[in-house]
Amino acid sequence: MRGTLSFLKPQLREAVGGYKLDVPECPIKLNQNENPYDWPSSLKQAVFERVRDMSWNRYPPFVPAAFVAKVAKYVGVDPGQVLVGNGSNELMYAVFACVLEPRRKLVITQPTFTLYALLGKVFGADVVDVPLDAEMRFDLPGLEIAAKDAACVIIATPNNPTGSVIDPMELEHLVASSEALFVIDEAYFDFHGVSALELCATHKNVVVLRTFSKAFATAGLRFGFMVCHEAVQPYFATAKLPYNVNIFTMAAVEVALEQANVLKGRLDEIKRERERVIRVLKERGLHVYPSRANFVLFESDKNARKLWEKMVKRGVLVRDVSKYPRLERALRVSIGRPEENDAFLKALEAALVEVKK
Amino acid sequence: MRGTLSFLKPQLREAVGGYKLDVPECPIKLNQNENPYDWPSSLKQAVFERVRDMSWNRYPPFVPAAFVAKVAKYVGVDPGQVLVGNGSNELMYAVFACVLEPRRKLVITQPTFTLYALLGKVFGADVVDVPLDAEMRFDLPGLEIAAKDAACVIIATPNNPTGSVIDPMELEHLVASSEALFVIDEAYFDFHGVSALELCATHKNVVVLRTFSKAFATAGLRFGFMVCHEAVQPYFATAKLPYNVNIFTMAAVEVALEQANVLKGRLDEIKRERERVIRVLKERGLHVYPSRANFVLFESDKNARKLWEKMVKRGVLVRDVSKYPRLERALRVSIGRPEENDAFLKALEAALVEVKK
Repeated sequence: MRGTLSFLKPQLREAVGGYKLDVPECPIKLNQNENPYDWPSSLKQAVFERVRDMSWNRYPPFVPAAFVAKVAKYVGVDPGQVLVGNGSNELMYAVFACVLEPRRKLVITQPTFTLYALLGKVFGADVVDVPLDAEMRFDLPGLEIAAKDAACVIIATPNNPTGSVIDPMELEHLVASSEALFVIDEAYFDFHGVSALELCATHKNVVVLRTFSKAFATAGLRFGFMVCHEAVQPYFATAKLPYNVNIFTMAAVEVALEQANVLKGRLDEIKRERERVIRVLKERGLHVYPSRANFVLFESDKNARKLWEKMVKRGVLVRDVSKYPRLERALRVSIGRPEENDAFLKALEAALVEVKK
Repeated sequence: MRGTLSFLKPQLREAVGGYKLDVPECPIKLNQNENPYDWPSSLKQAVFERVRDMSWNRYPPFVPAAFVAKVAKYVGVDPGQVLVGNGSNELMYAVFACVLEPRRKLVITQPTFTLYALLGKVFGADVVDVPLDAEMRFDLPGLEIAAKDAACVIIATPNNPTGSVIDPMELEHLVASSEALFVIDEAYFDFHGVSALELCATHKNVVVLRTFSKAFATAGLRFGFMVCHEAVQPYFATAKLPYNVNIFTMAAVEVALEQANVLKGRLDEIKRERERVIRVLKERGLHVYPSRANFVLFESDKNARKLWEKMVKRGVLVRDVSKYPRLERALRVSIGRPEENDAFLKALEAALVEVKK
């Protein structure tokens, strides 16, 4: 009897093993859209000094009000609009728990971040794809129609893995014309500079997700936050676990906020490098999609998996996205330090020669 | 239209604000069942030294296999049976996501840890209470009947806030006679020494939750893990977010495992102190429930909230559990250092005199 696993929700069988990552060891790592610059030692030391005198045997505050207030102040919203988590993923999970269940609809764009559809399925929702257009732009009329009977629409802007962005005026129109909850994943906000944050003050059906993993160079510590209308925040708070962010991460984020200019000091360089990489890829005849993030999606007429393997052999790890819908010929490369980008361009050039088709 | 918040699941309104904690500042903190001894400075320093040379800008491993293997080795199970998380709460959340949805049943005992019913409601499950008996012992026939059409049964052993334990033979009988998933929360295992871990190798419908927050004195860093049958682990892994445990917490847990004898060195003292506190409370004519954890539940004929307030005024913070089902007259005290326990006993004695009824 026990072999039947009847306690599992049926839809889980569809989702199992749905998000995997192939990570061979490579000296040049351009596969996860990380900031290529580590924290300076002095800032790490500053974190240690704050944590040293804390009581590790004690729980963090039940609601870390002073900490949340600092995050809220940094982004310029009311603390009552903010929730903090171990990466924005944890907050997306909590938001999904509040809105998704069987017979409810989650609208996603395609291609986009794998986790959206996967978690939608875990919650038993009907996941509806609204494809990006041929140039990987958002299909706004398509989204408006799909949102009509949806519980939730999730949009990454800039979108991963395409780099596409949604215009804030068009987003406002979408949000105002729908009763669905719009989750706007702004993981790559700092590379773009345009946000939906203001909509959270006026629209109860908007959640903005942000992370410290990208521009703030803090992927290893896992911190993200969400902003929404203060009337809705208590519902999302209920679905979020108490004490979720640990004392070390909070100390590091406090240091990061105080030293934001240091940690984010390389943003301009990263954006310049992005434009340079795009230019060189185009010069080599590759199809490159416009990107407002710290990565670039490009296509060749060669087998993407084979190109990826050849580059790995040369010590350069990019992201093979050829299993994503409509991206059979595509690879995604994170923008690294200038010398890493050079190594990537060189490895790609060699791979393009080696791979016949 | 947007004022309707129709995107929220209806059951969420029932759960909102369901778990709160009143934490006035007190020098003697005996309200959260924490280990009263902080990490020694030398161990904190050892963690800093490991973390200093890591790349904070990089994500933790997608699956932290080497780390999971260390945890598995420590508890003596196969790494394929283990998942790690930010406290055992996060893993309970992932497990609930795999088994709970509307029209599915979650069986809990009462009184027990508030979060079980709250999260059950977030997932839309029907939460069914099986009350403990008059002496706060588990009602095994009642659990067996309730489990028959349940998706999930969650049992804390030792149970919070009562300290009750379930006999492993009786648990095995329950598990073998049911198709429901049994989640056994062993947060307080180290104070008891009896585990359901072995059942995980032979029964696919058992999950054991463990935490480093209690015996390991690591509440501030939020780490827990779960053990289950290796055939079921991939399903639970799907509902758990990738990269969920950060590099600092992993480094700290590695140090904790290597230095387990130091961090857990006070367990015997805590258990002795528990027996002393129980003895003194009984001598004062209070009703004390047997406890195998690092806390004690007791009742007087006075108003529990008023007693709690009087003790807070004396700088001693215990847990007011008088809002829990059937615990109108009860308080819960964590076992602290000997001098903290003395302060508690003294404050309680004074409060019992001050509060008239």
